[in-house]
Amino acid sequence: MKRILILFSLIITLQLSAQTDAETIKTIFNNTLTNGMSYQWLDHLSNQIGSRLSGSLNAEKAVQYTKEEFENLGLDRVWLQPVMVPRWVRGAPEFAYIETAPGKTTSVNICALGGSIATPAGGVKANIIEVNSFEELEALGKENIKGKIVFINRPMQADLINTFEAYGGCANERYSGASEAGKYGAVGLIVRSLNLRLDDYPHTGSMSYGDLPSSKRIPSAAISTNDAELLSSMLALDKNIKLYFSQHCKQLADVQSYNVIGEIKGSEFPNEIIVVGGHLDSWDLGDGSHDDGAGVVQSMDVLRLLKESGIRPKRTIRAVLFMNEENGLRGGNKYAEEAKRKGEHHVFALESDSGGFTPRGFSFQSSEAMLAKVQSWKPLFKPYLIHYFEKGYSGADIGPLKDDNIVLAGLRPDSQRYFDHHHASNDTFEHVNKRELELGAGAMTALIYLIDKYGTDTISNDTKLKD
Amino acid sequence: MKRILILFSLIITLQLSAQTDAETIKTIFNNTLTNGMSYQWLDHLSNQIGSRLSGSLNAEKAVQYTKEEFENLGLDRVWLQPVMVPRWVRGAPEFAYIETAPGKTTSVNICALGGSIATPAGGVKANIIEVNSFEELEALGKENIKGKIVFINRPMQADLINTFEAYGGCANERYSGASEAGKYGAVGLIVRSLNLRLDDYPHTGSMSYGDLPSSKRIPSAAISTNDAELLSSMLALDKNIKLYFSQHCKQLADVQSYNVIGEIKGSEFPNEIIVVGGHLDSWDLGDGSHDDGAGVVQSMDVLRLLKESGIRPKRTIRAVLFMNEENGLRGGNKYAEEAKRKGEHHVFALESDSGGFTPRGFSFQSSEAMLAKVQSWKPLFKPYLIHYFEKGYSGADIGPLKDDNIVLAGLRPDSQRYFDHHHASNDTFEHVNKRELELGAGAMTALIYLIDKYGTDTISNDTKLKD
Repeated sequence: MKRILILFSLIITLQLSAQTDAETIKTIFNNTLTNGMSYQWLDHLSNQIGSRLSGSLNAEKAVQYTKEEFENLGLDRVWLQPVMVPRWVRGAPEFAYIETAPGKTTSVNICALGGSIATPAGGVKANIIEVNSFEELEALGKENIKGKIVFINRPMQADLINTFEAYGGCANERYSGASEAGKYGAVGLIVRSLNLRLDDYPHTGSMSYGDLPSSKRIPSAAISTNDAELLSSMLALDKNIKLYFSQHCKQLADVQSYNVIGEIKGSEFPNEIIVVGGHLDSWDLGDGSHDDGAGVVQSMDVLRLLKESGIRPKRTIRAVLFMNEENGLRGGNKYAEEAKRKGEHHVFALESDSGGFTPRGFSFQSSEAMLAKVQSWKPLFKPYLIHYFEKGYSGADIGPLKDDNIVLAGLRPDSQRYFDHHHASNDTFEHVNKRELELGAGAMTALIYLIDKYGTDTISNDTKLKD
Repeated sequence: MKRILILFSLIITLQLSAQTDAETIKTIFNNTLTNGMSYQWLDHLSNQIGSRLSGSLNAEKAVQYTKEEFENLGLDRVWLQPVMVPRWVRGAPEFAYIETAPGKTTSVNICALGGSIATPAGGVKANIIEVNSFEELEALGKENIKGKIVFINRPMQADLINTFEAYGGCANERYSGASEAGKYGAVGLIVRSLNLRLDDYPHTGSMSYGDLPSSKRIPSAAISTNDAELLSSMLALDKNIKLYFSQHCKQLADVQSYNVIGEIKGSEFPNEIIVVGGHLDSWDLGDGSHDDGAGVVQSMDVLRLLKESGIRPKRTIRAVLFMNEENGLRGGNKYAEEAKRKGEHHVFALESDSGGFTPRGFSFQSSEAMLAKVQSWKPLFKPYLIHYFEKGYSGADIGPLKDDNIVLAGLRPDSQRYFDHHHASNDTFEHVNKRELELGAGAMTALIYLIDKYGTDTISNDTKLKD
């Protein structure tokens, strides 16, 4: 009888607790949709400040602005964490054309890849060799490539439902294309923009020369998908056409910048730290609204929504706005380095860096036990049409925190439109929908609330771990 | 032993059949994403033809265009089903301003509601009475309303996740506002646009005077959400301001139009008919890309994707492009009437009329048994992030087919952005994402494939039915 009573009271407790969680999460979503700050903050970041390339004046304005906004929230602690960041500048706009005969030219849309060197002052003009992969480059060899511009025209795979998978399938061509092509004596590299859509926007992104000596480094740029199709079809008609391009970018000395951090102190376990974050820097072409203004304002709003919803967390919750994700990851590395140096105990970190679209769920780098725990919360998210709770990637900035004692997670918004805007001049505020952005902030807050309340099962505690 | 063998072979069969379904559905999705026609057809409908108000020349062009495209698909049968439709025309653009003192005016953005009468030639100018509901109107009564313009400023409820629910909460004020206000002697009706966003676009939509005599009919228009906020805040400062508006719309005589129908004949049960459809007409302000160009091209693509994917349906599959959903439902009614007259046996109908956004699932008007059957297919849709299979609304055009022998369903795309564009001049092609549209067509084709293969459990067969 006693056992039955205990069981009965346990059921009652669980039911009450489930009910309370459902109600709390409803309060969170009501708050984000009716008095959220994400959209207003993003409006300022995007339209009053603008693009926030590491080391730029705008990036520093964004540091000051977000620090002030954190301070206005009445958090327990707000601070700047110094970090030296690279400073690459685009300079005067790029210019490029296809030349079919002397004096007969067609302009095409390109942009320098981040980290690239400039062309010589007068630009580069040469014949073009089109390939789809590094294997093709190798097969062609120096005799076919030397003195030419290599054009890597590898389209993103359209039949993958998760567009980030399609991105992953082509990103290496952008990142390492110049060093690969440079080995064979190419004089320039042009890559097809990483965009699933056919349009006129070139998409930038980081590239690296690896350990290639300066003498072998060649300028590299992305061409819009429409112009990649044009160039390819013109090459199919005549191998002897030429491409001209000029760009004026350069790498300057590193400069001082900051991660911006706001914190609510835990009421029971202040030494257990939960991080939620996005990156404050962006590329320079648009205003970085989706990448990653959205993640920044959502992370800020998590702290505000917790307070607005009357939640006093047991653990310490930190919103971290990382600097320099795009071309260096210096902020993420610095944050992890400092955490380690101070012996801080991080139990959970969540990143939003996949755009401000309707949230579909989260992916986790965690133990099996933790994944099962999170999946048991799925019914709580169902009213908000949030269904996806699976193993997968978390985020670049929180990656350096990874060890066996932390669970990492990434917000997974709908990914269909992300690469229409990613790293291009049309990553702008008008392409963010207020409700979609706010629902993302609500989903993040709800997850942080549950993690804080029920804790994490980490890999170091996990005896059932299989992979 | 024999029983075990039968069970074993049943399991094997089920497994094989499940595998085949998963593969078939993968083929469907690959086809829609890599060689779908939806986007190209929508480009033509939206950019070459444009808005398609019932009775307009454009609506007739759309009939001819879609009929020809059906014919190009090599279907078993393509035909036009005649239907008389109402013809309402907007005439010269509307004009409106707020007057704070003689000669001191501020322009505001309005559009006539579909079905409204014009203002007198010189327009209407009067004091304004702001209300949120018909109950407030009743409480105010004739003495407070007579001679004034009634302004119904009821915002859509922002904390509802399904924005169609929020729409449902306000649509009656638009539909019946003029007849309600007219009863109390109002001289005009202005309703807040049914838009969750604050912007400058007025959103039209159908209204009705019910059985109000002509002498009591008053002109009615929608005002943009930004201007609704402006008008409300100006009224809060000064009750004596006036609103002027003029509009030139009129109802002409009915004209001949058509539902456009394409059909693949069933190989085993040709007399069991499955319908998939959207509506070909649209409002006149944008180009009707989301409402409902998307549903039209997706329905057309269902037939094409079945063929492309090598599926020979057992039952007859009809794509029906209904005319006059927006202001009369004449096409939907005519289709059902003809089906009944001919004694046709319709087993399933699916409508897409909620925009060309990422598909989240389907809602069903069905028996419990049929819902359970559909829900057992959920794992087949999981790779495409399609999770929602619940009871709910199907669609206006297929509604008249409802009886106990048919299952009705509606595609449920992500609804967050729909009312930003619905019935407004920004319902245009550039706001449709190619992949989102194609995924919708893929989801519809996959559902039709399963329904055709496994049949329906109808209410008339359902002994377990509870509601």
